[in-house]
Amino acid sequence: METLETVVDSAIEAHLAARTEARHASYLELLRIPSISTLSEHAPDCRRAAEWIAAELTRIGFDHVEVSPTGGHPIVYADWLHAAGAPTVLVYCHYDVQPVDPIELWETAPFEPFIRDGRVVGRGSADDKGQLHMHLQAWDALVAVRGGLPVNVKVVFEGEEESSSANLERWLQDNRARLGCDAVVISDTGFFEGNRPAMNVGLRGLLYTQIDVVGPSTDVHSGGYGGLVENPANALAQIIASLKNRKGVVQVPGFYDDVVKLTAAERQDIAAMAFDEEAMKELCGVPVLVGEAGYEPLERLGYRPTLDVNGIWGGFMGEGSKTIIPGHAHAKVSCRLVPNQDPARIFGLLERYVAEVSPPGVRVTVRNLGMGKPVVTDPTGPFAKAALDAIEATFGAKPLLSRGGGSIPVAEMFDTLLGRSPVMLGFSNPDDHAHAPNEFMRLDNYETGIRTLVRYWDAVAEVRG
Amino acid sequence: METLETVVDSAIEAHLAARTEARHASYLELLRIPSISTLSEHAPDCRRAAEWIAAELTRIGFDHVEVSPTGGHPIVYADWLHAAGAPTVLVYCHYDVQPVDPIELWETAPFEPFIRDGRVVGRGSADDKGQLHMHLQAWDALVAVRGGLPVNVKVVFEGEEESSSANLERWLQDNRARLGCDAVVISDTGFFEGNRPAMNVGLRGLLYTQIDVVGPSTDVHSGGYGGLVENPANALAQIIASLKNRKGVVQVPGFYDDVVKLTAAERQDIAAMAFDEEAMKELCGVPVLVGEAGYEPLERLGYRPTLDVNGIWGGFMGEGSKTIIPGHAHAKVSCRLVPNQDPARIFGLLERYVAEVSPPGVRVTVRNLGMGKPVVTDPTGPFAKAALDAIEATFGAKPLLSRGGGSIPVAEMFDTLLGRSPVMLGFSNPDDHAHAPNEFMRLDNYETGIRTLVRYWDAVAEVRG
Repeated sequence: METLETVVDSAIEAHLAARTEARHASYLELLRIPSISTLSEHAPDCRRAAEWIAAELTRIGFDHVEVSPTGGHPIVYADWLHAAGAPTVLVYCHYDVQPVDPIELWETAPFEPFIRDGRVVGRGSADDKGQLHMHLQAWDALVAVRGGLPVNVKVVFEGEEESSSANLERWLQDNRARLGCDAVVISDTGFFEGNRPAMNVGLRGLLYTQIDVVGPSTDVHSGGYGGLVENPANALAQIIASLKNRKGVVQVPGFYDDVVKLTAAERQDIAAMAFDEEAMKELCGVPVLVGEAGYEPLERLGYRPTLDVNGIWGGFMGEGSKTIIPGHAHAKVSCRLVPNQDPARIFGLLERYVAEVSPPGVRVTVRNLGMGKPVVTDPTGPFAKAALDAIEATFGAKPLLSRGGGSIPVAEMFDTLLGRSPVMLGFSNPDDHAHAPNEFMRLDNYETGIRTLVRYWDAVAEVRG
Repeated sequence: METLETVVDSAIEAHLAARTEARHASYLELLRIPSISTLSEHAPDCRRAAEWIAAELTRIGFDHVEVSPTGGHPIVYADWLHAAGAPTVLVYCHYDVQPVDPIELWETAPFEPFIRDGRVVGRGSADDKGQLHMHLQAWDALVAVRGGLPVNVKVVFEGEEESSSANLERWLQDNRARLGCDAVVISDTGFFEGNRPAMNVGLRGLLYTQIDVVGPSTDVHSGGYGGLVENPANALAQIIASLKNRKGVVQVPGFYDDVVKLTAAERQDIAAMAFDEEAMKELCGVPVLVGEAGYEPLERLGYRPTLDVNGIWGGFMGEGSKTIIPGHAHAKVSCRLVPNQDPARIFGLLERYVAEVSPPGVRVTVRNLGMGKPVVTDPTGPFAKAALDAIEATFGAKPLLSRGGGSIPVAEMFDTLLGRSPVMLGFSNPDDHAHAPNEFMRLDNYETGIRTLVRYWDAVAEVRG
């Protein structure tokens, strides 16, 4: 790998080097704000994070900085539009984070972040405050050293990505007039396992639902009623078990109807990635990798839809024993979707199937808690190519083209509303414990990534329509 | 129904009538102590309840009153052995109560009991502090009016019935020498639906287990890992769904092997009880009653074993959405057992079957949290017959002979250790919300039941070996 001095101009590098300590302190300051978007008691924290970021954008020199209200948590908007003749790029990150439970599995407090052994540890360090902070730092360096950016930038930093972006689409529609751009960059993805540089060229869609099973009007004694009333927890287990067969194949009729088959080129890309099953097993601590029968791991992850229970609860969950039949039981069930599955259609299919397989003694409902369509990016487009080149120049390896298993509903919204299929320029790692206890970001990825962004903006300045 | 004046002697009735207010105040005082045995933070409350009862027994005139230590919560022992020539009866109740969750479904605070509209409302009002208190009141009246009891009584009031009586068997063995008796009376059961007087002549046994399913070493992102690792919550649902088929038949091989078939006489008893399915549906608020195919409701409840999930949990249970694959998932699963099923054998069968049906990508264990053997009482024995007569005389109707769906592990212990198959003399109601929010006892049952007990002791005094 080249030394960092060679990958961005020396004035920028000197500026960055001089400010390392302040930069890290600022990063940790942002991580300390517990902006958990799904929990209503954290709404003030979400607002605080938005205001913190807005103040930074103002300080850097952005115009029209705004903590813009939505039906939920605010969106931070700002722009810098003084690069006449250069392209305009909209940058998206999110400042909200996942909840912290199971809190008992965190080795350190999730919102008391620290840097140790080359890692930044704390909720949001990778997903997605770290990446948002990298953008702030790249812009800060460019403006400080050169007096401005080489491109025009519009910033859209969301506060509800971890709660299904419930208000973003409406906001994008309402603000469409000022969001016109030549490209959209989303920084909320990452590298390939083993920290191999990679760029996402496809994201799965998402359908997030809750299944509610209601039985007796209260919890009842399992002695006095066992054998008389249907048990909602048993019924829920039956329903969930009906959703997939033992080979991991989703049993909802029509579920796979619209799935795009892999092309020969895509199969080649996948083969080139040499997925290390043993390493993945060790990383996860599982005896064996499993998934839909007939597909290789990376196909299952990026090109095939999945169905998972994200949470399940009902009845007595305490210490010891309590002999009841629960009055109700619940599960969060979500599907990762691939082109060209339509989340709304899949929800309808799921709802119908659940009604069919539900036993008669309980009342079952399926609620739609959020949807996002799958998205595919063309890696040969000029803005994507500039990103691939910038990664290669700074990280010293040709990035792999990956299909992320995750979902970023906003990617699909930009695609649909602005007609710009987004470039997914992200720097986190598959082992970063995003959405899990002990989340972290590699300090190297953060630091080198800032240089990548500087280089990217210089390259984008050369793109001509 | 006869008036109360005619069912016990007038001096006793006068004593009881004069003390109604004080009696109710005392009952509520006992209910106010939150003696939840399964939650370790309530250990001091369990001790307080035991001491409260011991003080009452001392006041009434019992000898050898003792708050006897065990490995867990104490047992209250006391005796009154001055009725020369009369039988000696051991009386068992329990002073511990079920946990109160789901607390949000209680209409009033569980440990702030009150009497309204003929009901005593609060945790433990029926199960089992109310019944324990009835015994205290009957003895108090007898000793106050006549200077003593007509029979010899030994009291064993347990504090761990709701947590599988973990230390009782050991205590009974250690104290066997002083527990010799002619009969055992257990007051922890109740009447038939519609408040029809009834006596339990059989109790189901219990096996209480916890199934733990462990997958990835932490919760992982369902996008980044969905399609690669087995989901413990899906796996748990699959395991639970494998335990029973859609007809309610338990699928564990050998589960039904030792189940005693119904005799013609037992079928007659059941037919005599005219179970009201519509009323039960309404009581429970369920669209239809279900259970093992091929059996009538009361057969399923009293004569057939059942398997129920008592609680299930794993992953994200909060508001909104969190896109994870949980690191682990758990369920409390218990079986109600009937003669001659052996809980230890059933546990072995269950453990083996769960291992067989568990998918390969997760680690699954089954833990045995408690067991109790099923028990059957002969209704023609002299002590049982005296109880049936006393109920008929005081409640004005010939009691039905019922088989309780519940389990009282201690019943089997007395049977095995003392050689006395217990008389189940209890006064609660199927709709009493035992183990559920808004538990209550009918004041009529409590008051008339005290008279039943007085009458019972007079009748037992006449029983001669």
